Amino acid sequence: MADTIPLGRTDRFLLKLESADTPAHTASLSTFKLPAGAHPGFIRDLVQELSEQAVTAPPFNYVLAQKGDTAWTVLPPEDIDLDYHVRHSALPWPGGERELGSLISRLHARPLDFNRPLWELNVIEGLENGRFATYLKMHHALADGAAVIGILTDSLSTNSDEPPKAPWARSFATTLREERESIQPPEQPAAQSLLQALGKVATSVRTRPASGFVGPFVAPKSVFNTKITGARRYATQQIELQRLKAIGAREKVSVNDAFLAILSSALRRYLQEIDELPDRPLVAAVPAATLRETQDGLGNSVTVIYASLATNLEDPVERMHVISESMRQGKQFISELNQQQIAILNGLVLLPAAFLNTIGGGTPSRPIVNVTISNVQGPRHTLWFGQAECEALYPCSMIVQAQALNITARGYRDHINLGIVGARDSLPSIQRLAVYTLEALEEIEQRLGL
Amino acid sequence: MADTIPLGRTDRFLLKLESADTPAHTASLSTFKLPAGAHPGFIRDLVQELSEQAVTAPPFNYVLAQKGDTAWTVLPPEDIDLDYHVRHSALPWPGGERELGSLISRLHARPLDFNRPLWELNVIEGLENGRFATYLKMHHALADGAAVIGILTDSLSTNSDEPPKAPWARSFATTLREERESIQPPEQPAAQSLLQALGKVATSVRTRPASGFVGPFVAPKSVFNTKITGARRYATQQIELQRLKAIGAREKVSVNDAFLAILSSALRRYLQEIDELPDRPLVAAVPAATLRETQDGLGNSVTVIYASLATNLEDPVERMHVISESMRQGKQFISELNQQQIAILNGLVLLPAAFLNTIGGGTPSRPIVNVTISNVQGPRHTLWFGQAECEALYPCSMIVQAQALNITARGYRDHINLGIVGARDSLPSIQRLAVYTLEALEEIEQRLGL
Repeated sequence: MADTIPLGRTDRFLLKLESADTPAHTASLSTFKLPAGAHPGFIRDLVQELSEQAVTAPPFNYVLAQKGDTAWTVLPPEDIDLDYHVRHSALPWPGGERELGSLISRLHARPLDFNRPLWELNVIEGLENGRFATYLKMHHALADGAAVIGILTDSLSTNSDEPPKAPWARSFATTLREERESIQPPEQPAAQSLLQALGKVATSVRTRPASGFVGPFVAPKSVFNTKITGARRYATQQIELQRLKAIGAREKVSVNDAFLAILSSALRRYLQEIDELPDRPLVAAVPAATLRETQDGLGNSVTVIYASLATNLEDPVERMHVISESMRQGKQFISELNQQQIAILNGLVLLPAAFLNTIGGGTPSRPIVNVTISNVQGPRHTLWFGQAECEALYPCSMIVQAQALNITARGYRDHINLGIVGARDSLPSIQRLAVYTLEALEEIEQRLGL
Repeated sequence: MADTIPLGRTDRFLLKLESADTPAHTASLSTFKLPAGAHPGFIRDLVQELSEQAVTAPPFNYVLAQKGDTAWTVLPPEDIDLDYHVRHSALPWPGGERELGSLISRLHARPLDFNRPLWELNVIEGLENGRFATYLKMHHALADGAAVIGILTDSLSTNSDEPPKAPWARSFATTLREERESIQPPEQPAAQSLLQALGKVATSVRTRPASGFVGPFVAPKSVFNTKITGARRYATQQIELQRLKAIGAREKVSVNDAFLAILSSALRRYLQEIDELPDRPLVAAVPAATLRETQDGLGNSVTVIYASLATNLEDPVERMHVISESMRQGKQFISELNQQQIAILNGLVLLPAAFLNTIGGGTPSRPIVNVTISNVQGPRHTLWFGQAECEALYPCSMIVQAQALNITARGYRDHINLGIVGARDSLPSIQRLAVYTLEALEEIEQRLGL
């Protein structure tokens, strides 16, 4: 009899989110340098080499009997059509950021095939300056965005002497569930207790001092909180960590506060240009790992902090300080909540999507949050894929109904790598956000004389 | 108020066939020679040039409000996101038939976005020997396979001096509906009269002499008549028309008979190799235009001829004569039917798909037909896409539940171009069919001393 693995509540919910308009997968885009003197068939040989490594590592061998299933079946390697999952692609000339973004947008829009294990790896040749890329896509019910990058980095090596190793053939180090389980969707059967707990959170929010603190439900209406369709736009950007550190040190704010400040500038300019900047400040959901007491003692826990992006203010330095204070108060607020309240606060991010995808109805008149902005640390040392040096690791997150934009960043070596995912029909030219982010960094450096 | 166009019965039926496992679009793949001295940005400029030609020609500007809609809305050009529909793709090195087939398989498996007009054009660079390709995909409810090729050839020019013209910007010459309307699905509301008419056809079939004549419902069970999933395999082949003519002239059979004979050899060998050759001969549905009396006088009409492929016989020449006789009797049989009976005979090809997709249930225990093989004449003169010479036009047809294989051929200049579409999970390595077709041609030439 085949091995089966029951689906958790979050996984079942993520399968319910799956639709043609909201395919519920996340991905990781990585770029690599071709080794010196690589022959034209280098990528073809690499794809071949990967296709010969049998699928032995979970969850690459998990399959659903049907979409509504409540358990994964574990497939033996010979039942997995690896030539289907491992795909060789190419960029048209000149193979720049524009061509790469365009291909990733299309790949990210395409739903996974539910007749098979829910993942695909594209190996993409033709990047300018002697480079190639990989795009690893997995269903969110198998692994969250952080886990996809974790799986990928685990399969890379810290030295260039090892042969390239397929993520599905490796020994299993990454925890797939830890972060995801902490961001749980609202539990539908227990609507009563959900409402009670929501009430507690709402009361806590109302009784906070007004100075800079924001909670859920105070976000203004925005172009980001609309119904979305299936097509995507994708853009990337790299930011030198040292430049954010210099700003933080000068102004006594964290690197993440500086990061949020330049994104705030970019979002503000983008919204101004399409004449959609709300009067009230945008609110971002910022997932953050915090040290806190758990049942088992002290542990790492992921919470969502609701932060004002202060987009009502013009001055970027003033804005950064308001953001920083808002983050501080958000952390303070969370430290006073019990585990149940935190779980509910975290789950609120998915509430509109839950209603729109599984219950139906229009977009909520009151956004719970405007945009999700996530920034996770990553490996500081150089990683290798065989003899190919990894240049960058970009996240490529899921967006859901009523949340048309997701900005996720991941550290690698001395850079922060941004992956910006937007709904094509709601958000024109989101590539501009990537450009404006760097311009905002320069602007704030100039203001501070750095 | 927006213009609307009601959907015909066939179009509504084709929308019902749409599912993740059976996306109901057809396509045309064309290959072109790059003009001498084309610079590396030639394709990029071509895509740009096409993207600047507004969508004015129906049905490129038709959209459904929702999938179950019964009318198209006609969109003004400014409401169509042409950068979405026109896509620039590339083949990995070395850009051979294998890489092209692999990309087309993936493109053909991907459903169209029902939020937009149901078509996409991919312009594909990187074919070996200084060539590029286009892949035009349209939903079957907008245009059938023959119409897609017709639309494409209409947009090409007979001389190389004209600038490249987008199919959606041209004056409208091709009839989109003529052929399709003649192959109508069984009408569901009038089940009673359908059954009566079916009875008539069945009686006609039973009362025919047994010598070579086959009708529907006599096909053996085969690996082609299974449930299919969404992934596809695609292969192409070119056959010199002159070689088929020589065989036909020598043996007093038609070019199409010779064509069916070599496909029969290829199918026979393929099935033998996977140990799936039925004892009884395979039956092919062969759409054919015939001259016949219509209500308005004599006219062109498309019918489906049911032909034995004589795959029970080993000798290719003997097999060709049985096929030829079966085709002759099939034509004779159809000439004796009235219009209603012909419509029903034609519609039978879609009956299992209709039941499986719209009514549900398993695959029929008795296949109505094993495989569809279509061969349509095409332009004899050279066509140009701007300064790029068109080398070949391949069809890329739809497959449906219980019909996992479709072989469609189109004439262009002095060649017949085959497009073979199969369900990936049902049919391994269908590229072999393309190879075996040419080997079968050589075999029969040797037998005849040609």
